[in-house]
Amino acid sequence: MASEKKISPAVIRRLPRYYRYLSDLLRMDITRISSKELSARMGITASQIRQDLNCFGGFGQQGYGYNVEYLYNEIGKIIGVNNGYTIIIIGAGNMGQALANYTNFEKRGFKLIGIFDINPKIIGKKIRNIEIMHFDTIDEFVKNNKVDIAVIAVPHDQTPEIADKVARLGIKGIWNFSPMDLKLPYDVIIENVHLSDGLMVLGYKLNEARKKSAKNKQE
Amino acid sequence: MASEKKISPAVIRRLPRYYRYLSDLLRMDITRISSKELSARMGITASQIRQDLNCFGGFGQQGYGYNVEYLYNEIGKIIGVNNGYTIIIIGAGNMGQALANYTNFEKRGFKLIGIFDINPKIIGKKIRNIEIMHFDTIDEFVKNNKVDIAVIAVPHDQTPEIADKVARLGIKGIWNFSPMDLKLPYDVIIENVHLSDGLMVLGYKLNEARKKSAKNKQE
Repeated sequence: MASEKKISPAVIRRLPRYYRYLSDLLRMDITRISSKELSARMGITASQIRQDLNCFGGFGQQGYGYNVEYLYNEIGKIIGVNNGYTIIIIGAGNMGQALANYTNFEKRGFKLIGIFDINPKIIGKKIRNIEIMHFDTIDEFVKNNKVDIAVIAVPHDQTPEIADKVARLGIKGIWNFSPMDLKLPYDVIIENVHLSDGLMVLGYKLNEARKKSAKNKQE
Repeated sequence: MASEKKISPAVIRRLPRYYRYLSDLLRMDITRISSKELSARMGITASQIRQDLNCFGGFGQQGYGYNVEYLYNEIGKIIGVNNGYTIIIIGAGNMGQALANYTNFEKRGFKLIGIFDINPKIIGKKIRNIEIMHFDTIDEFVKNNKVDIAVIAVPHDQTPEIADKVARLGIKGIWNFSPMDLKLPYDVIIENVHLSDGLMVLGYKLNEARKKSAKNKQE
């Protein structure tokens, strides 16, 4: 069997961005695009785009560019957006509720099928027609429903225990919103969200802009 | 004046991660670390680490490794964590409240000083001792307080208008939580948060794991 190319984490991180931009182009009825035009839109160099897309078999044709719909569908397959992924949210505090209301997940092929909490005041309430269930009932829920991804949005100190439970139930993907790098001794794929990273990038850029403006004033 | 090295966006995106890991090491009283050890912890190759840190002047010494505290402080300076950045949150719905409660921002040097909304039911309420103010009062607030960053957590369709207002008030950084790439005709630095990107990366990894496991079964 042919060995598959190892795709670098940096390219994997850019995949969703390609997918989003292509989705926008489709919505605007743009059927084909050159790497140069895509580059101008996305702020990535054209050569980087060609290199990235080559990792996935290279869907461009010289002189024609990329077929937007084809590329969109191919990247969708790579991400698995048509796999019918299902997600549950654990923790229906502000963050959990914000995520439950975030309809963009569905647009990307991820279907929310359950929300869990332990707060009796909110159990039974519905968010977008999905009932908040007691966390004690999660075993049964997972037995009766295919659950691919658990979104963990509980307080920091409860996260390891909840994640452990989720992994033991056989859920294969965890999306962790606690500000900690979760690691588990199981065969589970974990994506840790670090919200403050974005803020630090913004800080860096503000810092650079200030230095530049101070320098311009000096010169 | 010496020209400064242009730092690639990929390296900039990794800066917060270095900062977080170094902060953890400091908390564990680890005073120095080799690029090899840091590599094992962070899941980035040692050569990538050396390359990245070289962009910022290279703080390692052969045979000694990196001085954790020094490196932590230097990266902090690059990010500007000691600049006393101030942030306000616009939109105190679930997402805005979740962000207001996210104390990690303060740990990274970003101080929340105001929250704004238009819903009369929540105006006057406090989150972590910061009062939710009416959006109509933002002009006065910005006149009387140094505001570096506005976090926009309002519904999708209101985002462009709010962002425009914020930029005209002279706020130089926008952290946008609406699922749209915000662009403005002003000299403003915008970081767009795309929550579903993380979910798509998770989808990709689940897809790869499944293909691998199906292949193993076949062989």
